[in-house]
Amino acid sequence: MDITESINDTFPTIINTNDITNNISENTALLNITCNKNKLLDAINIVLKAISGKSTMDILDCIVIEAKDGQIKLISNDLEIGIETILEGEIIEEGSIAVKAKVFSEIIRKLPSDTVKLTADDNYTLFINAGKSKFNIASRPTGEFPYLPDIERNNKVVISQFTLKEIIRQTVFSISDNENAKVMTGELFEIHDSELKVVSLDGHRISIRKVQLAGSYPDISVIVPGKTLIEISKILTGGLDNEMAIYFTDNHILFEFDNTIVLSRLIEGEYYQIDKMLSSDYETKITVNKKNMLDCIDRTTLMIKESEKKPVLVDITDGNMKFAINSSIGSMNEEVDITKEGKDILIGFNPRFLIDALKVIDEEEITMYMINPKAPCFIRDKEGTYIYLILPVNINS
Amino acid sequence: MDITESINDTFPTIINTNDITNNISENTALLNITCNKNKLLDAINIVLKAISGKSTMDILDCIVIEAKDGQIKLISNDLEIGIETILEGEIIEEGSIAVKAKVFSEIIRKLPSDTVKLTADDNYTLFINAGKSKFNIASRPTGEFPYLPDIERNNKVVISQFTLKEIIRQTVFSISDNENAKVMTGELFEIHDSELKVVSLDGHRISIRKVQLAGSYPDISVIVPGKTLIEISKILTGGLDNEMAIYFTDNHILFEFDNTIVLSRLIEGEYYQIDKMLSSDYETKITVNKKNMLDCIDRTTLMIKESEKKPVLVDITDGNMKFAINSSIGSMNEEVDITKEGKDILIGFNPRFLIDALKVIDEEEITMYMINPKAPCFIRDKEGTYIYLILPVNINS
Repeated sequence: MDITESINDTFPTIINTNDITNNISENTALLNITCNKNKLLDAINIVLKAISGKSTMDILDCIVIEAKDGQIKLISNDLEIGIETILEGEIIEEGSIAVKAKVFSEIIRKLPSDTVKLTADDNYTLFINAGKSKFNIASRPTGEFPYLPDIERNNKVVISQFTLKEIIRQTVFSISDNENAKVMTGELFEIHDSELKVVSLDGHRISIRKVQLAGSYPDISVIVPGKTLIEISKILTGGLDNEMAIYFTDNHILFEFDNTIVLSRLIEGEYYQIDKMLSSDYETKITVNKKNMLDCIDRTTLMIKESEKKPVLVDITDGNMKFAINSSIGSMNEEVDITKEGKDILIGFNPRFLIDALKVIDEEEITMYMINPKAPCFIRDKEGTYIYLILPVNINS
Repeated sequence: MDITESINDTFPTIINTNDITNNISENTALLNITCNKNKLLDAINIVLKAISGKSTMDILDCIVIEAKDGQIKLISNDLEIGIETILEGEIIEEGSIAVKAKVFSEIIRKLPSDTVKLTADDNYTLFINAGKSKFNIASRPTGEFPYLPDIERNNKVVISQFTLKEIIRQTVFSISDNENAKVMTGELFEIHDSELKVVSLDGHRISIRKVQLAGSYPDISVIVPGKTLIEISKILTGGLDNEMAIYFTDNHILFEFDNTIVLSRLIEGEYYQIDKMLSSDYETKITVNKKNMLDCIDRTTLMIKESEKKPVLVDITDGNMKFAINSSIGSMNEEVDITKEGKDILIGFNPRFLIDALKVIDEEEITMYMINPKAPCFIRDKEGTYIYLILPVNINS
């Protein structure tokens, strides 16, 4: 794919808000601002999330520093995710410059004093002064930079930062990294009335989280790239009381919180019809202490070699669940107390899948539902706020 | 070099203290002990320091567990360093077994309960039981294992664990990793009367530390492998009041402390005549706050690319030391307050060498002595307890 095409495709309107020639003042400064070192560092750490470091275009490895209309912004864009964040500071001269993200963040991190002065001259040299420390680094004009397009802010959904971060943590582990099934590399975000449902799947398992929103909204169903969700959950620091807004368009999702906006492309395509795969039938139902079970499965993984795909055998009888694994390293078995309803069952699992699900469940006790050794196993709560479907491994031996 | 030859060379007397056939009891157990999990883990972490993981002989990747004469020992040996540590525990059946260090340490780390039972059968299967958790892993007989030779314990030197650890930290950074100059990969340990002098050098710099010992000793001069010193300083946890013993033979150095002995080969050869390189003449003497100077040099390294070897220029005038560096990334300069005696000087350094030395000096203020931009620079205290010689970089431009 041609890179220019790709830019145009992502952000159809490249708004060059920064015609440099107009900004050059008598003393030919392109930019002249002062700010607090730690606030600058916080802002840099936010926009770094949209610097891939693997870009083939130098400009995409840059952070744009823009002082305009009385406001300082840092901006980054890797063509999948774009981030803008507002930086508190004093503007002596408006303007903008693009600076290599890596060296800029390393310099700011190591500066000696609280106050940082950033100025740029018309040779695109950026001067960084703090205390007695003076850096000059080569920078570049912002003309080529793919600024974030203006997004119509309709379809606003309000959610707490903490809740969004939790939902992502509890589902994102089961996206696929197979770029050939693009839809699987993202998560379904579906809103109906006041319920947000988030789904991820990778062919062996499905993770579903549902939350009630404060308001009621028109139906929305989009696929958000997993990478976007991983990066945004690193930036979100707010608690349960810190609200944020999410806007949806046909091609984009926009997250707005604190002084920051994160804009991401959506993944095109139809998501899987997961409702068909869910079932509330079961032959065996067990309740178990989550930590005991997790620690025990964790120990079974000690017997796994990368090259061997050995399942853990789970033998469920009254009051007892026995885990056993056998490999070229050796063998291991351990029992865990349970409460059981229904039939005994012997079933095999990839222990990694059980661990991933158990790790993100907050409850002390979990309930598992099984039908037979070849049918999906479900870990879910009564209210259906979380459902983890895991396919067993064939143990025909 | 043939591996068998190498073993014989290192440890001429392979004492197989463990003739397995004699140890097999009625129930054919090769070993049967119980111990506390955390004490076992501590002992494993000590002997792991002599497991290289890069060995061509499987037996060298093993830890020997030996219960003999009422004592439990863990033993490891990578043919350069050998370690024995005593483990508190109960012996039900004496015997010994060799177990792969990596998987054994991982299992013990993850065990659920405080009490661990270790038994081995005559198929060399090791059974690890803790709480409800049961592991079986394949192990091997100890017949092939290169046990540590008996070392004559003459030439005993007593030093505090803390002091030895500090001396190593303050010198080991300037050993060379060039295996073609084997002597440079070790450190000179020289004892004269009651003074221990430790020296390392790598062709660009020399580090010297001297300490006064509590007693007076016959002259000793040996070269200890840097790797031995790095590993032993990881094991030493004791404070200033915890004494340890060091024994010297023609080919070995033996460290004895707490319940552990560490035996290492010495490096053969003549060490460099460093006294000729030391001089107390100077034309410029400066005193500077160590932290200010260190932070400033640290910032200069931000301008260094791996591929470019750019020196930092140090311009010393009355009361002022200016650091400046110029590279393809950009340029940086910063001034630090100093007290100066003697001439002004402009001199270039590899900033890494200054940083390494400054980092290990505990004093708040340091004193540097220079003659001219081509002669070695010295950082040393009045008493000569530490001397860091650093060669400047040519700045003929």
